[in-house]
Amino acid sequence: MVTDLYELTMAASYIQAGMEQTATFDLFVRDLPTQRSFLVAAGVDDAVDALGSLQVTQPSLDYLAGLEVFNARFLEYLADLSFTGQVRAVREGEIVFPNEPILEVTAPLPEAQLVETLLINIVQHQTMVASKAARVAIACRDREFVDFAARRAHGVDAALKGARAAYVGGAVATSLTLAGQLYGIPVTGTMAHSYVTTFESEREAFRAFARRFPANVVLLIDTYDTDRGARVAVQVADELAVEGIAIRGVRIDSGDLERLAQSVRSILDTGGHPEIEIFASGDLDEYRIAEMLANDAPVNAFGVGTRLGTSADAPYLGVVYKLVEEGGVPKMKHSAAKANLPGRKQVHRFDEQDLIALVDEEVPGGRPLLELAMENGRRVRAAESLSAAQERRRQAVERLPPRLRVLRGGEAPYQVNISDGIRALIDQLTDAG
Amino acid sequence: MVTDLYELTMAASYIQAGMEQTATFDLFVRDLPTQRSFLVAAGVDDAVDALGSLQVTQPSLDYLAGLEVFNARFLEYLADLSFTGQVRAVREGEIVFPNEPILEVTAPLPEAQLVETLLINIVQHQTMVASKAARVAIACRDREFVDFAARRAHGVDAALKGARAAYVGGAVATSLTLAGQLYGIPVTGTMAHSYVTTFESEREAFRAFARRFPANVVLLIDTYDTDRGARVAVQVADELAVEGIAIRGVRIDSGDLERLAQSVRSILDTGGHPEIEIFASGDLDEYRIAEMLANDAPVNAFGVGTRLGTSADAPYLGVVYKLVEEGGVPKMKHSAAKANLPGRKQVHRFDEQDLIALVDEEVPGGRPLLELAMENGRRVRAAESLSAAQERRRQAVERLPPRLRVLRGGEAPYQVNISDGIRALIDQLTDAG
Repeated sequence: MVTDLYELTMAASYIQAGMEQTATFDLFVRDLPTQRSFLVAAGVDDAVDALGSLQVTQPSLDYLAGLEVFNARFLEYLADLSFTGQVRAVREGEIVFPNEPILEVTAPLPEAQLVETLLINIVQHQTMVASKAARVAIACRDREFVDFAARRAHGVDAALKGARAAYVGGAVATSLTLAGQLYGIPVTGTMAHSYVTTFESEREAFRAFARRFPANVVLLIDTYDTDRGARVAVQVADELAVEGIAIRGVRIDSGDLERLAQSVRSILDTGGHPEIEIFASGDLDEYRIAEMLANDAPVNAFGVGTRLGTSADAPYLGVVYKLVEEGGVPKMKHSAAKANLPGRKQVHRFDEQDLIALVDEEVPGGRPLLELAMENGRRVRAAESLSAAQERRRQAVERLPPRLRVLRGGEAPYQVNISDGIRALIDQLTDAG
Repeated sequence: MVTDLYELTMAASYIQAGMEQTATFDLFVRDLPTQRSFLVAAGVDDAVDALGSLQVTQPSLDYLAGLEVFNARFLEYLADLSFTGQVRAVREGEIVFPNEPILEVTAPLPEAQLVETLLINIVQHQTMVASKAARVAIACRDREFVDFAARRAHGVDAALKGARAAYVGGAVATSLTLAGQLYGIPVTGTMAHSYVTTFESEREAFRAFARRFPANVVLLIDTYDTDRGARVAVQVADELAVEGIAIRGVRIDSGDLERLAQSVRSILDTGGHPEIEIFASGDLDEYRIAEMLANDAPVNAFGVGTRLGTSADAPYLGVVYKLVEEGGVPKMKHSAAKANLPGRKQVHRFDEQDLIALVDEEVPGGRPLLELAMENGRRVRAAESLSAAQERRRQAVERLPPRLRVLRGGEAPYQVNISDGIRALIDQLTDAG
């Protein structure tokens, strides 16, 4: 039922007209947001899972019957609905570019139509967050970053799936416990300002926390005055050393992070604790991190929240789902502004360029990106581990032309070529239209 | 488990230290995004529901135990956890401003701490979307708009809760079937471009659809050429009139919407169908709609998707959750950059200004916004209907100073005053700090 009503009206109309021929839809991104030079595919495995468990429950059937829009025949069709088709898709963590199918669905027309909203929703959200995270990873160079986005994500599912996508994109951990539980992503977190204020003093708060969680002590030092907080951290570190407790790091979450990191580093070093690391958080994104590191801010790791989880500078992607073949006949939309590439395709990746070709065109030498994921409504391969997807993303980013591993656009885009076979098909379909 | 790990580590530390005294936290927005002059509170009832069903399941307990961070005492605490506190909150659809508590939680400290991430997540998302929708409603003047955001929302929950919030903010309907089923929001939708292309001709597609769904026929006319589509719609309207089927409207989803709406209106009128309405969709938001209506575009209703559901020009709000009282003692964070108002509060709304006061200060004449929603962990009032919330928003927007019912900022902000009682408390706490 995570579907737009028009998917149902269209499907009902197809059923009514006996139009249950096999159709193929491509899910792809039309254009890159201006601030992006590549995208990281994510959510593909979740989309496949969603297809595998597709069904319309009785309460939904009752609701739809009550709308008095659908006839008994269509409601019976929905009651028996499951996904019976084929899916080809790129792997989680793969880099993709506009017009390249991320996922291709081949199924009886009404079935393929009904899943449009759901598939776009899942893939666009996670691809958006994974792509943003990959940029944060580029900005971080050799430092690590953690996903802190849960609270400002767009609802609970966005927090969870956002943590998943951020991990694929390069976050080493998340603050969201549920993402740890369900996905095995490392979880991390220490204390908030309110924790510090509930104790008599900052020192008391630091002591209580360190004694309770001695294995991984990170003290939040900016509740009152950051430099004072750093000095208190030094004192507590000295004091607890005799108990065998080490302070791993301090976190700065507000103020002029560059200046504060410098002075805190100096206080920690002078205090005899060069081993205590500095974590920075608070309104961070790839631009701010790049700026801090360009200015040699002595920050060891970053917590990145709101702007990562909402992909704040590009909070949506133009993901679409277009009919490309029907009853064995290639299709395309003719309107000039929103044309799409017809036919069933394969994307071949070469060194620093891609070729989008018809699936049956022979293309030697490249690496095909679309792989069979479902056949007859069943997975043909198990979902991979997220760390495998993370590693795929890491390697794919490394193989990008260096001009694309930057945060601001303006460079020549990645070269994506269209095969002769597709060009011939476009000419043929355009003449026919 | 929709919680950041640090909520758990803090709560564990409180339990360990026997710090289970009553604490009060305010949930509020720190600043308005530059493009906003007011916010519409939404998600409050969902937040209350989430508190009412708070529990930690066995799989979650097993996961947390496996982290080897928490001791048996804390895990037992979590196993028995339910929300036992009090909640005061503004009503769904109420207008709010920065620093005004939207929701106030009073509960034993660890409990109140644990729910921070969840409450912020729910309220920030829906308040963000409802606030955006209220702006779209202002731009639409006397026209209606429908939420089309499901596919580009950040995941499935964002689509559903976004439809809810958009309705509170002013959408008359949604395309998302699940939102109709669960919330009773009117659902609407017709066809996609792919539908048109699956038929031999546009005319065949229009005929099939109108005959199948004669009650509410809206034809998508821009698949090939919009003007031609309008002429085909006229022919189909004439043809089906003899069958007693009326065409209610045509939809334009691409191209220069103003120019196309003009020419389509002319084609429909010339063709003898002034009663056929024009619906516009495609990359719309309040700015674009205002522009179209300023240019007298003959559009009767709008479908607004991506930019509404993601609140694209302001994709997050600075919602925070701050300790304001603990063990009967007012609290505030001292760091200059992020100070908050101490003490338990009431917000009093007067004609074109608000006063934030302490809860026990006598303030005659205003309308108090915070109402008791939960006591001892139980709802003290049933959740309202969404249409009541929508009506509250409508009236509240009408009562705003006209300078705030605009789309671009720059005008004097709404006047929010701080009471003498709160000022005295700040002075006292600042001196003490």
